[in-house]
Amino acid sequence: MDTRSKAIDVRLQEIEDSQAFQGAVIIIIVLSALTVGAKTYELPPLGQALLPILDAAITWFFLAELSFRFIAAPRKSRFFFNGWNLFDTIIVVGSLAPLDNADAVLVARLLRVFRVLRLVSVVPQLRFLINALLTAIPRMGYIALLMFVIFYIYGAIGSILFADINPVLWGDISFAMLTLFRVATFEDWTDVMYETMAVHPMSWIFYLTFIFLTAFVFLNMMVATILEVMSEEHDAEAAKEAHEEREALAARLRRIEAQLEQLTSQLGKR
Amino acid sequence: MDTRSKAIDVRLQEIEDSQAFQGAVIIIIVLSALTVGAKTYELPPLGQALLPILDAAITWFFLAELSFRFIAAPRKSRFFFNGWNLFDTIIVVGSLAPLDNADAVLVARLLRVFRVLRLVSVVPQLRFLINALLTAIPRMGYIALLMFVIFYIYGAIGSILFADINPVLWGDISFAMLTLFRVATFEDWTDVMYETMAVHPMSWIFYLTFIFLTAFVFLNMMVATILEVMSEEHDAEAAKEAHEEREALAARLRRIEAQLEQLTSQLGKR
Amino acid sequence: MDTRSKAIDVRLQEIEDSQAFQGAVIIIIVLSALTVGAKTYELPPLGQALLPILDAAITWFFLAELSFRFIAAPRKSRFFFNGWNLFDTIIVVGSLAPLDNADAVLVARLLRVFRVLRLVSVVPQLRFLINALLTAIPRMGYIALLMFVIFYIYGAIGSILFADINPVLWGDISFAMLTLFRVATFEDWTDVMYETMAVHPMSWIFYLTFIFLTAFVFLNMMVATILEVMSEEHDAEAAKEAHEEREALAARLRRIEAQLEQLTSQLGKR
Amino acid sequence: MDTRSKAIDVRLQEIEDSQAFQGAVIIIIVLSALTVGAKTYELPPLGQALLPILDAAITWFFLAELSFRFIAAPRKSRFFFNGWNLFDTIIVVGSLAPLDNADAVLVARLLRVFRVLRLVSVVPQLRFLINALLTAIPRMGYIALLMFVIFYIYGAIGSILFADINPVLWGDISFAMLTLFRVATFEDWTDVMYETMAVHPMSWIFYLTFIFLTAFVFLNMMVATILEVMSEEHDAEAAKEAHEEREALAARLRRIEAQLEQLTSQLGKR
Repeated sequence: MDTRSKAIDVRLQEIEDSQAFQGAVIIIIVLSALTVGAKTYELPPLGQALLPILDAAITWFFLAELSFRFIAAPRKSRFFFNGWNLFDTIIVVGSLAPLDNADAVLVARLLRVFRVLRLVSVVPQLRFLINALLTAIPRMGYIALLMFVIFYIYGAIGSILFADINPVLWGDISFAMLTLFRVATFEDWTDVMYETMAVHPMSWIFYLTFIFLTAFVFLNMMVATILEVMSEEHDAEAAKEAHEEREALAARLRRIEAQLEQLTSQLGKR
Repeated sequence: MDTRSKAIDVRLQEIEDSQAFQGAVIIIIVLSALTVGAKTYELPPLGQALLPILDAAITWFFLAELSFRFIAAPRKSRFFFNGWNLFDTIIVVGSLAPLDNADAVLVARLLRVFRVLRLVSVVPQLRFLINALLTAIPRMGYIALLMFVIFYIYGAIGSILFADINPVLWGDISFAMLTLFRVATFEDWTDVMYETMAVHPMSWIFYLTFIFLTAFVFLNMMVATILEVMSEEHDAEAAKEAHEEREALAARLRRIEAQLEQLTSQLGKR
Repeated sequence: MDTRSKAIDVRLQEIEDSQAFQGAVIIIIVLSALTVGAKTYELPPLGQALLPILDAAITWFFLAELSFRFIAAPRKSRFFFNGWNLFDTIIVVGSLAPLDNADAVLVARLLRVFRVLRLVSVVPQLRFLINALLTAIPRMGYIALLMFVIFYIYGAIGSILFADINPVLWGDISFAMLTLFRVATFEDWTDVMYETMAVHPMSWIFYLTFIFLTAFVFLNMMVATILEVMSEEHDAEAAKEAHEEREALAARLRRIEAQLEQLTSQLGKR
Repeated sequence: MDTRSKAIDVRLQEIEDSQAFQGAVIIIIVLSALTVGAKTYELPPLGQALLPILDAAITWFFLAELSFRFIAAPRKSRFFFNGWNLFDTIIVVGSLAPLDNADAVLVARLLRVFRVLRLVSVVPQLRFLINALLTAIPRMGYIALLMFVIFYIYGAIGSILFADINPVLWGDISFAMLTLFRVATFEDWTDVMYETMAVHPMSWIFYLTFIFLTAFVFLNMMVATILEVMSEEHDAEAAKEAHEEREALAARLRRIEAQLEQLTSQLGKR
């Protein structure tokens, strides 16, 4: 690569990183979000005429911006290895698909909604937040698996015992698990319970043990998350600071030792 | 400014800061709160006759107190730069507005309600608490923005897919977001879900992913708040203490070094 | 006091503190709790005949136990200064009141219920727990006051604006505050909101700001509690340990300094 | 035991611990979970014919696996002292019981559901999690007892005062406690309250004090759990690290002292 094209690359990079460029992109994304919202209202004829034009303009702006970012990227081949770039590309290219029949119109409208998510990929703080949230998921992996096992077992028992009482709630294991999720959110759970208690008077045991188990496991999940985040972020900093101060102390001691050594040898020589 | 007016200023300041003055103001505010509450009850004729008089008395007392505080203030020009003073002035002056028609009466009644808020501006602990809460808001700024993006996207999807099923709940994006807030508080959310599941049987995915996302983000918001407050208040103190002790150690070591230095030079000279 | 009565006192104290005595009291309290529970069921004639006898026996046992504890107390005059003793006395003496008319029977039944609370005053761990909870209350004092101010202001506004829409929910400020408490627990709060939105379409602002304020203040209340308990119990121990170790280090340094001092003077003398 | 049978034992142990063996067991457990779930759906004739065969195959696989683990165990007599082995044996042997009448079929189906729980006993991380949760229970023991006392007292009062108003909710103390649990989960609690307020207008005091007490105790229970887990796991590590660094400092100082000691004696000798 000759120096001139390199200089252009650097210049493009500078434009991409500039406050003005970032600000323009954010404004267009917010505008795109507003058009998505506006379409859900009954609009006057003027609005109905303007929206498709605005929509097309936004689509072309996004396409231009993405192309620009691709051109500005130092290594073209690695552009799509970045999750956020891939995410942007799918959303932008998705809005370009031709709209032929009714179904496609619906899909296109839904794809336009996801353009709001581009806010996350553009604002660095939100991108950082999402990355932080994603790293928090495996942390809770096994507790989530345990939770699923509890739901599955209670779902199976529930659909075996209560399927004849109310097939809508307990018809099969997937319905039963949805009903159990409802019970776990305390949403009209007593109505569900009183219905089965009319047939099986002891079935309150089923609900109470389930609520205690999920609440208990959930509480521990929360505690585990809090603890793990704390031991990661928080300690790291505080411990580092304390460690540095102690290091300084140790260095000072080392110097004292050296001085003593010298003193001893000085005395020994004489 | 001559010394005599200065002495008066100091004297006024003393009166304002005195326990008796503060106590009197708090009592009048509580009385004002009681009249606001009393007006919502059916009152006997005597009460109905007394309330406007009491109300006027409270209004004039507040005006007098505010004027006094303004006179006692060392720098008049900076009086309104203090948020609490401005807040008090708006509330007190607001109650003075003449009541002509029915609408104004309602507004005046509502303004009188906010006089209860003066309790916050007078009791130092509450003022401190509000300040602490206000500083906590930016801390959660980006998480709140992320939450809004989630609500907006689900609101748009919901109003695109479900508007025809129930226009009251999903008619446009603002109705849809209100309905989603309801779902997030678990308030009869299964009724909302069963209604849309009758048309789109897979729409439970919409609700479950929404609940998981908001609960998950909210949980992390809570953890973030707890962590940040902790790393601010709590560590500050503990770390400072540990730091001081380590500083003392370092000082002591420095003295030892100096002594050794002296000893070495003493030996060298001989 | 002669040595013999002193010896009796010590002996009585020993009996009171013995495992057997404590165990017997706990068994009687649990029995008393069971009779209270049993009375709420339809009992066979035998049970109905036995319960009053058992009840009287428990009353007399409690009276005997309390008298014994009073006699065993080293200082009679300070017996009632202890909150738990006073609490026991009121409950035991309360059950002795004669039952003449229907109302008294109800009151006597209710007083017997509170005998279950004696479990708290007898089991040391529960007594400790209650003491810990009581000390936690002032900690949240000002946040609770702030919460009350929020409820009061929204209650006043609610009863001013919505009293005509539904007097049962918003009739006066006390009804309004009860309704707001219901909203704060998310219990059918949308039904309340939709009702007032039919008249004031913007009243969702009232509910949403209220929910955000109370949830936000509550979240901070929780964080504050967690923090304060932590900085009290937790730090105390950890800090003490670290402090002790650093103290040992300082002592060691002081000894080194002294030794150096001596060395310098030794060199100086020669 | 001769060396040859020992070698066989070691070989068996190796097979049991191998990734392949563990993986096969996990796959069979998941398959077993799927058959349990599948049975709750309306199946085509082929599925209905295949399921019992698959079911029997799984049962025999589990029996073989358990026998193998028993044979591979170094000490046969201690095999059942391990809670997880006992748990597996009960579940596997339970599925072998002959199915004669309708009731037994139901019990057998329920026992098959619990085979999903074997996932917990096989995946080490889940086993670790369950052990951690079990150790967390005594931690909350006394707070749970206090909670029960509160429920019992309010249950007794509720059934004394409200039994005639609604026997389904307040008929006896067990019904009353179930209703109170419903109130504690905020599930339609205002319906319960409004019903009793129609007879006893002041009964809102009963509900509000109950909600405050349980919420307050629960909040403290949560804080206590968080604190105790933290002071156990978290501090242990951080404190250990700090302790080690301080130990290193102390060792270094000790060496300096020794050197000084030597220096002093060297000077003294001359």
